[in-house]
Amino acid sequence: MMHGIFSITHRDPSCLARTGRLLLPHGEVETPVFMPVGTNGSVKAVDFSVLDDMGIRLILSNTYHLFLRPGVDIIREAGGLHSFIGWQGNILTDSGGYQVFSLAPFRKIREEGVYFRSHIDGSYHTLTPEGVVDIQTAFGSDVMMPLDVCTPPGISKKEAEEALEITTAWARRSKERWESLREESGGLLFGIVQGNFFHDLRRRSVEEICALELPGTAIGGLSVGESFPVFQEFLAFTAALLPSEVPHYLMGIGTPEYILEAVEQGIDMFDCVFPTRTARNASVFTRSGRISLRRERFTRDFGPLDPECTCYTCRRYTRAYLRHLFKAQEIMGPVLATIHNLHFLFTMVEEIRESIREGRFSRYKRAFLARYQEGTRADENE
Amino acid sequence: MMHGIFSITHRDPSCLARTGRLLLPHGEVETPVFMPVGTNGSVKAVDFSVLDDMGIRLILSNTYHLFLRPGVDIIREAGGLHSFIGWQGNILTDSGGYQVFSLAPFRKIREEGVYFRSHIDGSYHTLTPEGVVDIQTAFGSDVMMPLDVCTPPGISKKEAEEALEITTAWARRSKERWESLREESGGLLFGIVQGNFFHDLRRRSVEEICALELPGTAIGGLSVGESFPVFQEFLAFTAALLPSEVPHYLMGIGTPEYILEAVEQGIDMFDCVFPTRTARNASVFTRSGRISLRRERFTRDFGPLDPECTCYTCRRYTRAYLRHLFKAQEIMGPVLATIHNLHFLFTMVEEIRESIREGRFSRYKRAFLARYQEGTRADENE
Repeated sequence: MMHGIFSITHRDPSCLARTGRLLLPHGEVETPVFMPVGTNGSVKAVDFSVLDDMGIRLILSNTYHLFLRPGVDIIREAGGLHSFIGWQGNILTDSGGYQVFSLAPFRKIREEGVYFRSHIDGSYHTLTPEGVVDIQTAFGSDVMMPLDVCTPPGISKKEAEEALEITTAWARRSKERWESLREESGGLLFGIVQGNFFHDLRRRSVEEICALELPGTAIGGLSVGESFPVFQEFLAFTAALLPSEVPHYLMGIGTPEYILEAVEQGIDMFDCVFPTRTARNASVFTRSGRISLRRERFTRDFGPLDPECTCYTCRRYTRAYLRHLFKAQEIMGPVLATIHNLHFLFTMVEEIRESIREGRFSRYKRAFLARYQEGTRADENE
Repeated sequence: MMHGIFSITHRDPSCLARTGRLLLPHGEVETPVFMPVGTNGSVKAVDFSVLDDMGIRLILSNTYHLFLRPGVDIIREAGGLHSFIGWQGNILTDSGGYQVFSLAPFRKIREEGVYFRSHIDGSYHTLTPEGVVDIQTAFGSDVMMPLDVCTPPGISKKEAEEALEITTAWARRSKERWESLREESGGLLFGIVQGNFFHDLRRRSVEEICALELPGTAIGGLSVGESFPVFQEFLAFTAALLPSEVPHYLMGIGTPEYILEAVEQGIDMFDCVFPTRTARNASVFTRSGRISLRRERFTRDFGPLDPECTCYTCRRYTRAYLRHLFKAQEIMGPVLATIHNLHFLFTMVEEIRESIREGRFSRYKRAFLARYQEGTRADENE
């Protein structure tokens, strides 16, 4: 079942990188695209008007968090998630599976679904594949993700295989429910590939998930604690197996290094809390590397965060002032640094798209990284 | 010495309320005016562009805090405070005296000045009246305040008299230093009236301070813990003694009730952390009273914070969403509530000016308070 929601517009001749257009209920999105994360229905420290102005048309939000607080009923009563949070761009909601495994103080996986306790108040809850589709339908999510089982590196093959099998079974049930609700939801359901760090399991998962012919495919279970070379290997291996014509979403990555790696392997979508979280911790991207504004050397640095950046923060404020805001624990430190980091990544991804259109992505990647990584190392060694 | 920086444009026939224009180095300011507080060179949780858009042309910043962090040298090197913080409106800096008394873990007042330890790192510092003028000159403050001794209610008359005498002596020395620096500073020095809660001491302080013929006069030592009736009494008593032709600044007040009281007594300027601090604590102004967004009853309230408000927050977001942001401890809660509270107060002060121009301030005050206080009481009794 293809939905005609995705069209590839350019392919880079030297690798798998491609540009495309993703047609979602709340408007078209150019790919590759970075999705800022709005866990609780707010991209932390940045107003939606800023995202509007940056041209951001797709964010990620979190089913687990919103299910626990404020709860599905309130979002439904508000008229859906877009209306509740006051944003009319597209929203992809993850399934909550990842958060159940990483946040809940207790969880038990059964064939029917997952039982867990809330990390907020310890209350007991159940999520089933069908329930998760129902919740995302109530949210009015533009892209829904099915409940899956994400596993860390280092587990046995048997455990990885069990997680894979549950993930596939749940994906089938999710699809069934999603299809039965198509009339009340315009949202798309993507599949999620698991398989841990075993080549044959990754291959099997791709085959099983892609057989469902969902409108998009995500790679889950990467960037979960493995080394960068292992990430590279399993990304390249898995991405190459995906059908070319659907959008490829790599879950949970968002540093410049990981983004460039992902795009090179034909990934179209990615999300990560890193750019916003690291900004709140006074760490900002520049062309010449990621720098910590807490460094002594910025005390009297009256230049912008990045002299090549055109974001609001760089046009108005200096490194010395931002450093002062962080030292004085002023809220505007995180706010202004977040604006900068999102603008930086958004601009970088725009440049990536341009380089693909012009068939020079590999050169762009090399040039970007040479300068960026040298600066990052220099800052870290201070 | 009059500087022609202040002209009264209208007087209300029924009380001392008046409108005026204050000509400051960074542009004209209409009075009465509320000054948002930017303690560390940032109005907490709100960007300067938002203040620009609201038409705010004068903020207050804090000599004590900026002297300790980032320090005078850095601000001087940046080209002054406006340049350091990236704001080209006017800045009034307080003297730091109040903070030395309320924040420093140790302080000793001597004739020459005040010795104290920093609340940040315990380091030892001295501030003299001359030093405080020097600092504010380095900042490039548009309005400077002299070092004074602010005392709480309940002290003996002897103590109050000593504080008054030091305040007067320091004001004289401040004026001398300020005059000697007039060539490098375009800023104005105001006087500060003290005298605690003794009528004769208040009168004596007004006489001594006003004899210095500084371009503006502030009333200090009110709203420092006394009851509202005592505040009213000493405000009315002191304000009536001030020369009419200079701007009257009442330090440290900023609730609707106190502002209306102050304006009625001929006050032209006021500042307070209250509107911004209370916003960060989920408490917002509305025409129908101040409400706490933490209340259960706002869980499913999909209306704006105040249906009569035209601020950005009210145009885009709901009470239910703001409540959710505060419950989830999202930074955007404080940010959006702060925008609202400042817009609310700014609009209210605009209406106050209009009511004075039209000679109906007393009616405005009565009507505003009747509705506002009833709603505030109802919310507090929940």
